Amino acid sequence: MEGVNQIYQYSIISSLAQGICADGLPVPQALRHGDHGLGTLAGLDGEVIIIDGQAFQYTSGGVRALEKSDITAFLMITFFEPSKAVTLPYLTNETLMHEMSRLYPSTTNHFFAIRVDAVFPHITYRVAPRQNHHRETLAEVVQRQSVRSFKKQRGTIFGFYSPGFTGAFSVVGLHLHFMSEDRKAGGHVLEFQASNVSLSGAVITKYNVELPETEDFNSEVIMEPDRG
Amino acid sequence: MEGVNQIYQYSIISSLAQGICADGLPVPQALRHGDHGLGTLAGLDGEVIIIDGQAFQYTSGGVRALEKSDITAFLMITFFEPSKAVTLPYLTNETLMHEMSRLYPSTTNHFFAIRVDAVFPHITYRVAPRQNHHRETLAEVVQRQSVRSFKKQRGTIFGFYSPGFTGAFSVVGLHLHFMSEDRKAGGHVLEFQASNVSLSGAVITKYNVELPETEDFNSEVIMEPDRG
Repeated sequence: MEGVNQIYQYSIISSLAQGICADGLPVPQALRHGDHGLGTLAGLDGEVIIIDGQAFQYTSGGVRALEKSDITAFLMITFFEPSKAVTLPYLTNETLMHEMSRLYPSTTNHFFAIRVDAVFPHITYRVAPRQNHHRETLAEVVQRQSVRSFKKQRGTIFGFYSPGFTGAFSVVGLHLHFMSEDRKAGGHVLEFQASNVSLSGAVITKYNVELPETEDFNSEVIMEPDRG
Repeated sequence: MEGVNQIYQYSIISSLAQGICADGLPVPQALRHGDHGLGTLAGLDGEVIIIDGQAFQYTSGGVRALEKSDITAFLMITFFEPSKAVTLPYLTNETLMHEMSRLYPSTTNHFFAIRVDAVFPHITYRVAPRQNHHRETLAEVVQRQSVRSFKKQRGTIFGFYSPGFTGAFSVVGLHLHFMSEDRKAGGHVLEFQASNVSLSGAVITKYNVELPETEDFNSEVIMEPDRG
């Protein structure tokens, strides 16, 4: 099954939503499945970004390369080979899916892998803190998130668009992480304006999910998130 | 990724729910991914059952072995290697998950593959008819289903338990198909009583979904089914 432009996903987003993320999979095992991705570590510790095979964790304390001993609680990763690419003078989070629809006009219910290399006149991103107690939910954790912005420097966004029916598994719509060219800044994208843009993408139809075999994952029933 | 006790699934149940199942994947490609499974053909045509590598389609007109030219619209399949097995004097659809919980007491959020070999004092199953028009929904189609029962003969049930968070992808809870020992009778299980039971199962944590690349699949937005 494994190959280019497939998603390998470890765990499901609704597990994090319930705060079930105390442990997980050693990062080196997850990194076998791709060179571009995003996720978080056990305990919802920071924002993981993987671009061009380089994997970093951003926390409130800074950035570091992922190490063999790190444990991921949630990760989506692919061997990214863009099937289409376009240069654009300007792009924002609000126009990104319009541009993707122009590149892939007949795609309605698939995933996309999306990469944006650009100068960012402005980008806002968050870094989630580590859970401060077992089972702290994602919604509670992000109330303590640190929101940062970054101006007029080059950087790269990578992430996924997940179709509407995937709500219990993935973040529906755009889920993007950011890394500055110098690697010093990065996190979960909230809003961006980009200029001198290289936008590239790939349609993903093969979605390979590995559910955790941890005691933590099986300790309570995981529900679909309430979207009412 | 491929291997024993993983699920390969072609398409998603919410696509069938919306009647989006006009075409799909040639059956021989799907059968590469396992020896036990269930599904349906393009146009929701009947009930597909795969047991011990033998693949059959049951329709209102009878049974036939699947052929190379058949197209599946939805299929879940695994290389089934039971990790636990038990013999029981009696089992029903209502007690099956209780017995599975005894076999696998610490499993809460995983899939199960389940096989029941038994004498069936009574089993009721349905055979869905083919869509009578493009986009006829699954709910509409099963209003015309033929319900059958089978008494005091040997047969085999195979299917999957899917955890609650999988609603848009799979049939939540038990999804079981039946085949009599003589192959003449089979369909989608509604209710059963079984005696002289061999129950075997496997936990499945790797769930590999392939979304259709057909024009039909991308022709309208697929929504999560309404479970209100």
